[in-house]
Formats: sequence, structure tokens, C-alpha cells
Amino acid sequence: MGILTGKKGIIFGALNDKSIAWKAAEAAAREGAEIVLTNTAAAMRFGTTKILGKQLQAPVIAADATSVSDLEALVESAMAHFSGQFDFVLHSVGMSPNIRKSIPYENINYDLMGKTIDISALSWHKLLQVLYQKDAIRKGGSVVALSYIAADRVVSGYSDMADAKALLQSITRNFGHIFGKERGVRVNTISQSPTMTSAGSGISGMDKMFDFANKLAPLGNASAEACADYIVMLFSDYTRSVTLQNLYHDGGFSSMIVNAEVL
Amino acid sequence: MGILTGKKGIIFGALNDKSIAWKAAEAAAREGAEIVLTNTAAAMRFGTTKILGKQLQAPVIAADATSVSDLEALVESAMAHFSGQFDFVLHSVGMSPNIRKSIPYENINYDLMGKTIDISALSWHKLLQVLYQKDAIRKGGSVVALSYIAADRVVSGYSDMADAKALLQSITRNFGHIFGKERGVRVNTISQSPTMTSAGSGISGMDKMFDFANKLAPLGNASAEACADYIVMLFSDYTRSVTLQNLYHDGGFSSMIVNAEVL
Amino acid sequence: MGILTGKKGIIFGALNDKSIAWKAAEAAAREGAEIVLTNTAAAMRFGTTKILGKQLQAPVIAADATSVSDLEALVESAMAHFSGQFDFVLHSVGMSPNIRKSIPYENINYDLMGKTIDISALSWHKLLQVLYQKDAIRKGGSVVALSYIAADRVVSGYSDMADAKALLQSITRNFGHIFGKERGVRVNTISQSPTMTSAGSGISGMDKMFDFANKLAPLGNASAEACADYIVMLFSDYTRSVTLQNLYHDGGFSSMIVNAEVL
Amino acid sequence: MGILTGKKGIIFGALNDKSIAWKAAEAAAREGAEIVLTNTAAAMRFGTTKILGKQLQAPVIAADATSVSDLEALVESAMAHFSGQFDFVLHSVGMSPNIRKSIPYENINYDLMGKTIDISALSWHKLLQVLYQKDAIRKGGSVVALSYIAADRVVSGYSDMADAKALLQSITRNFGHIFGKERGVRVNTISQSPTMTSAGSGISGMDKMFDFANKLAPLGNASAEACADYIVMLFSDYTRSVTLQNLYHDGGFSSMIVNAEVL
Repeated sequence: MGILTGKKGIIFGALNDKSIAWKAAEAAAREGAEIVLTNTAAAMRFGTTKILGKQLQAPVIAADATSVSDLEALVESAMAHFSGQFDFVLHSVGMSPNIRKSIPYENINYDLMGKTIDISALSWHKLLQVLYQKDAIRKGGSVVALSYIAADRVVSGYSDMADAKALLQSITRNFGHIFGKERGVRVNTISQSPTMTSAGSGISGMDKMFDFANKLAPLGNASAEACADYIVMLFSDYTRSVTLQNLYHDGGFSSMIVNAEVL
Repeated sequence: MGILTGKKGIIFGALNDKSIAWKAAEAAAREGAEIVLTNTAAAMRFGTTKILGKQLQAPVIAADATSVSDLEALVESAMAHFSGQFDFVLHSVGMSPNIRKSIPYENINYDLMGKTIDISALSWHKLLQVLYQKDAIRKGGSVVALSYIAADRVVSGYSDMADAKALLQSITRNFGHIFGKERGVRVNTISQSPTMTSAGSGISGMDKMFDFANKLAPLGNASAEACADYIVMLFSDYTRSVTLQNLYHDGGFSSMIVNAEVL
Repeated sequence: MGILTGKKGIIFGALNDKSIAWKAAEAAAREGAEIVLTNTAAAMRFGTTKILGKQLQAPVIAADATSVSDLEALVESAMAHFSGQFDFVLHSVGMSPNIRKSIPYENINYDLMGKTIDISALSWHKLLQVLYQKDAIRKGGSVVALSYIAADRVVSGYSDMADAKALLQSITRNFGHIFGKERGVRVNTISQSPTMTSAGSGISGMDKMFDFANKLAPLGNASAEACADYIVMLFSDYTRSVTLQNLYHDGGFSSMIVNAEVL
Repeated sequence: MGILTGKKGIIFGALNDKSIAWKAAEAAAREGAEIVLTNTAAAMRFGTTKILGKQLQAPVIAADATSVSDLEALVESAMAHFSGQFDFVLHSVGMSPNIRKSIPYENINYDLMGKTIDISALSWHKLLQVLYQKDAIRKGGSVVALSYIAADRVVSGYSDMADAKALLQSITRNFGHIFGKERGVRVNTISQSPTMTSAGSGISGMDKMFDFANKLAPLGNASAEACADYIVMLFSDYTRSVTLQNLYHDGGFSSMIVNAEVL
């Protein structure tokens, strides 16, 4: 009897077996949940989401998280699959074309910054709005997105992704207020340690940041596996009164300034 | 199979069946934990801790949390009972003689303020220090104290308890750093909604604050039962990378300024 | 001898004599600064910016803050007028078409949300980037934008402006880091009390929020005149080591939860 | 005409010419203020407060900031000297016997921790309470204490001073609420960069922390002179609506996580 027995939900962003979303899907299944997986069509081609789908006997539905119509189709398919409302969603979606192209923040391309914001932050509002309008989430349900501490304080090099994450956290509060008050649904973000996923590894200087955080965090960096367990816990009824929060899952890093090792 | 199967710990402050600590003890037992209960000798006389002890087959050991020697004896007894290290502790201890005597904050009695601080905040440092020095907590263990949002922003009437809670949260960070780095032990506080416990009900204006928070929190106030489940979750391995945090368990209240109902 | 003697700068957003930017321009002039005023062409038609220009003997230059080429032309004109670098800029720019059209946050129009973000937040990045690339600000200079507490916690009804302000504050940190490190220029936001400007008055429920904040803030709401003085102070050398901050100018409101008057 | 013309106040803690309080007294005098200086009798013996008194034609009155009767006598003397109410006070008082004796935080001496708290935090409450009860501060007046970022996040080695500063910041909010609401007086703290004063230099590892902060802060560490100007600004009417705040004066350090130089 796992802590998600009888619960159902959608997991975004399980690109490959290094992804936090991949491990979250495995953990949710282990805890008794039924799952629908989703990713962009492109990500499904170069990633291995379908393998995970087979492993977990979960439908895999392509959707572009920046497209309201794709999200509507996804949520309708999930409701058809689950025969009605479901309980949880994980949003693990983010990308900055400015970072990919190594365009510095002080010479940013605004078309690309618009894309960073649309993919990494507005997709979150769109998802919440589609879930809300379709009344897709059961009362007591829990919707979670992944964030990063650069949303709160400066991590040099994280560029417009930092801004997108700040926006994501704001949307969490503002939509979470409505989703909580009107429907009894929780909305939170998890601010995870730097993690060596495919996305994380793509950011220049990520390895140095990983080491710095690992030294400064009293427990060291939180692993993707630990994050998966924390996500599962946020989907469960053990956290039924927690909402509108940005929760640090980082071995204590966020509460540190310096320690002897870093000095 | 509960989420605390095989785990052992001490619960402070289970005065009576309205106490958050009481419900936490019940929840921990339900999840498979073995427990030792403790309270002051005085609280054990006018409360019903012993009844809970019988119900949960848990030893009840009197200890004054402001006394280092009492805490040492308690921890030694617990280690004897558990045959070694244990996994978790809940600190639910706090009292302000200034509030009890309705002494206003701007005319405070400094002897009494010293007592508020000793009972409500330094007891937390003393507990952590005794646990640390006796190496009482297993690697991966979790120590939790209860806090309140008045530690962060002003709740008028909460007086020197607000200051004591701010101090408690600071000790959490500073001792948590050491306990995490050196021993792999987590230290966190939970900032709980106003709750109609015996302690909570004793604060003048508490009922109005309860109603205000209940209106403003998107999910309404978090109940003592929900808090007990959240505590249990923080004791479990699902949260193994979370430390040095003050975690709001308040139906979203802490992220709100105003809503239509309050206006 | 005012505290801005010898300093020069640009003020955005002085629509009419209720505007914070209007009063900031007057205060800056009173303190000895030379000023260039700017606003959109549309705002200059229905507002009275030109009257202020005459009063302060300040050039008034039309610019759309969402247009990089307009901003470039503005900064070039200002540098020509000032014969080189200048010392300060006030960004007082923001508008949400979703709020104007009373479109609820849970049914938002994403084209309009893009406009809210572009006008109210990306204009800030664009301004900073143009100032940076043209090396327009003297070492020790100070660039300030106006924010609002809805960026940090939920003010129901503030809708996507809250998200835009959160993004504005993030941009402040990320660009401020670069502008400080590379050029010795400060970048901050001021989080001002609800203020009965033309912009403020247009938000539904603003009067109730004004009253609520006025009751809860220990000093009452901060006036537009006081804000102007605070802005001037942030432009001065008295604050030469303050950067990357969001500074509450709100009579203490941001540090309050409740008081007796609100309960 | 300085920005404190006609204003009067008390400055605590001007030990010698490296002290922030010393420079604040000089800056206040430069801006037109009349000053009373105070320090403990012991500090007056090994420091040079009296020299500053002569230089500024300011009375120097011995007072132990942990003694309510000393504070009462001080405030009465100041009111006699100023012929009534005055406008500002700077509290620059703090000391940890545990740090002085190199007692580690995880083996702390609780008698000494009580002293750290009394000297560094309760002295602030006592000062505010005496000022309040004697109605010593004019409406619009401003009372400021010095804090440090270790109050908010962990600086390893800062030990129980971190806890005392957290308590100081909480007292600022709670007493500031009352002093603002009832008397129109502002109460704030400044969180200053590590500074090479006599007090700062005494903390082990301070030089490393100074260098780390200097690298990470976009503007470098804030100097004692800049801090003095910031204090003077907080005493002035330019900041008349700012209260209950902890204001970072640190070259932007508090908003940073990491930059390339630190990595």
C-alpha cells in the first residue's frame, strides 16, 4: 500500500532516465498511482519517454506545453483514460534559447526571451488554466512545478531562466490562490538542488555550481531520486494543507551564506 | 506498512487530546513508529499525557525542557529504551508569562521575557545540543519544532512569543547546519496555522486571528490532524534532503496579503 | 544645495500631477538635478507631461518603453542633451490589458498577458540593456523602478500585474548584478503603498485595498510625495552601496500580518 | 544646510574611529544634527569616545545598554540636554562572550548565550521601551539598529550572535509596530556588510568572510563611511514612510548566490 494508492495524474517532462520527472513517474507508480506521461513530440523523438510508458503501462501523449489546444487535448485524453477527474500533475518544463545560444544576459535577444518565458513560465499558467476550466483535478489534488533558487537570488549565468522561474513562482501563488479557494486544489513549486539531468548539464558552468552547492549544503545536493520522493509526498494527503509555497529541496543550501569549506 | 516503520523517536508537549503533539504521537504510532513521550512534571499533572502513553504503549518521562540535566536524563532514558540511537524528535514547547499576565509588549517585564525565551527558544538549542553531544540521532534522522508566522511578520498581541519563535527559527538554521554537515541529521520548523489547542486558546484575540486566517488562507486553516500528518512526513525518508527550513503548514495563508473576503 | 546637485537623469511615466513620477521629477529638480522627461506618445496626448516639462525646463521626449529603438533614440537624445553620461533613471511604467478589460486571472487572454509582461517588465530589461550598451550611466549612478507587494504575496485582483512585477524584481537582481559588477551602477525597485494615481485608481477594488493597507500599516500608507523623496534619496550618494534590492516604502505594511484594527 | 538640520539624537557604540557609530556621529554632525554620545563605562576607558565628544561638542554619557535604569538616566539626560524630545537614536551594540572565548555553537555555554542575547538583542527592546515610556522621540523620528545577514541565513562561525541578530530584527518589527501606530516613530535595522571595525575584526574567520563578501557583492563590500551616510539618510525625512524594515547595505551581497569570481 503506497502513499498514492488510488491516485492518478499526469507527469510532464520525463525525457530520459536522468530526468527528475522520469524518477517522479517511477516513484509515483511505486506508490500505487496511475500515470499519464507527456512530452513534446520533438522530445519524444530524441528522448526515451515511450520506454518509460511501457515500463509503467502509462499512456504517452504528445503535447506542446505552450499550446493551449495541445494542453486541452492532453487533459481531455487523460480524463478519458482516468474516467474523470484526476489527482496530480507534475510540470517539469523549461528551456532558454538565449542560454542554448550562449547569448549573454546584457545583450539578450527579446524574441528568444519571449520564448524562454513562454516555455518555462507561461506554460505553467496555461496548464493551470486548462486544468481549472476543465475541472480536471479532484478536490484535495496537488499540482507541482519545478523551480530553482536563481528565481530568488542571483546565480550568475542562469540568465533569463532565472526570470522565468521567478515568474513561475508568482503564477504559483496567484493561480494557487484561486485553485485553492474555489476548488480545494493545491499548487506549489519545488526549488531543487542543481541536478545533473540533460537540461541541467546543458547550462554552462553548471558543474562548478553543482560542486559549490554540494559543499555549501549541509546535507550536500539533493539527488533526483530524493526529489522524486519529495514530489510524491507533495502529491499525497500527508501535505493536504500546503499550498502557494516554494519548497526548497536542496540539502539546506538555501539557508546558507557561507561555511568553512566554501571559504 | 506505515511510512515510519522501524523508526523511533521522542515527542514533547502532548498535553491533552487537543495538542498537535498528541495527534503527532498518534500519527507516528499509526505509521509504525515507536515513541517516548515527555512533558514537564506540572503539565503531566494537569494534562493527560499518561493516558496517551498507555494508549500507545509509550514510556512517559518527565523533563523540564529548560533544564540541560533533565534533557540529558531524558535522552539517556530514551536511548536505553530504544537500545541505542533513535530517528526523530518533535519539540512542541512554548509559553510566555508576559502574555499569561496580560503585560503589554511596550511595558514588558524582562525577567518574564527571559523566561519566554528560555522556555520557547533556548529549550530548542538545549535539546539539539544534548542530542548532538550524546550522538542520539541516527544518520538521516529528523528533528522538528513548531513555529508560527508571527516570527516573520507582526501579529499584534503575540508579543514576546513572536520574538521567541524568531529565535527558534534562527537556532534551527544555525544548529541545523552543524547537525546536517557533521551527522547527516535534518532540523526544521513547521509554521502552523493558528490552532485551537489549550496553548493557542490562551492567547487573547486568538479566536479573531483564527477567523481572519481561515478566511484569508485559500484552503482555510490547517487542522491539528493535518499538522500531525505533515510532521510524520517530515520524520520520514520522503523528505530526506530537506533541512534548515521553516515550512508553512497553513492552507496558503503565508503567501497571501488580502482577498475579497477579508476586504 | 540639494542632495542631487550636479546630477542628471531621465524620468519615465509622469502622466499627470497625481503620478509618482511627476512628483519624483519635481523632487529631483528641487534637489538640484537636471531632468529629461519621457512617456509614450499616447500618454503625452491625454496626460500633461509637457506642462511639467515647461515647469522644470526639461525636454520631453516621446518613447514607447517596449521599443528598443525608441529607447535607443531616447538615451541618445538624453546623452546629447546632457553632453554625455548621466546619473539616474526612474522607470514608472506598467499596464495590464487583462485588468483593463476585467478579464479574470483564471480565464486570462495570453496575447494580452504577453503585453502586460512586455509593457510592465520586459521594458525594464530593455531600458537597462540600452543604458548598459550605450554606457549611458556614470559610475555610482542609480536606476530605479516602481514595484508593488503583489509581486511577493497575493493581492487578489492584481492579476497578471503581480506576475509582471515579480518578473521586474527578478530582472532587477539579474541585470543589477551585471551593472554593478561591470560599471558600478546601482539597480533597485521600490515597493510602494497603494497610491491613488491614475493607474492605481483604475484597478477594481483599489479603494478597499487602499483602506486595508492604510489601517494595517503602522504609519499608514506612504504618500506619492514621500515616495518621490525616497526615490530622490535612492538617486543620491547617501545610498551608494545599496543595490539589487526591493525596498518597501509602505509605512511598515509589508512587515505586518494583522493588527487589532484589521481584526 | 544638511539633511539633519535641526534634528537631535543619541548615538550608541562609537568606540573608536573605526566604529560605524563613530562615523555615523560625524556624518550626523556634518548634516547639521546635535548629538549625545553614549557607551559603557568600560568601553569609554579602552576606547576613545570622549575624543569624539570633544570634536563634535557632544556630551558623552556612560550607560550600560542592558540596564534599564542606566537607559532611563541616559534618556533623561539627553532630554534635559536637548530641552525635550529628540529625533533619532542609533543602537550599535553587540557582543558574544561565547565567540570571545571560542566556545563552539554545538557546545555552547547557556549563561554566556543569555549574555549575548541580553547585550545584543534585549538591550534593543529595553532602549525602545524606555524611549517609548518617556515619550522621548518626536513624531516622525527614527530609531535604527545595526544587524547582519547571519540573522537571516547561516554564516558559519557567527554562532549565537546570529541568533541575537535574528531576535533584534524581530523586536524591530514588534516594537516598531507599536511605536509607529501610537507615536509615528520609525524603527528599522540596517544589515551591513562585514566591516573591519574592532568588533568585526574580533570574530575568527572574519577576514575570509570579508573577502568572500567583497567578491560576491556586485559593488563590493559597503564601507563604514557609506554605512554612516545610509544611517543619516534613515534619520532624515527622506525616508519618513519606511519602518519595520531590515535594510541591506551590502553592495548587493544579500541578493546573490554565486558569481563567476566565487566559483
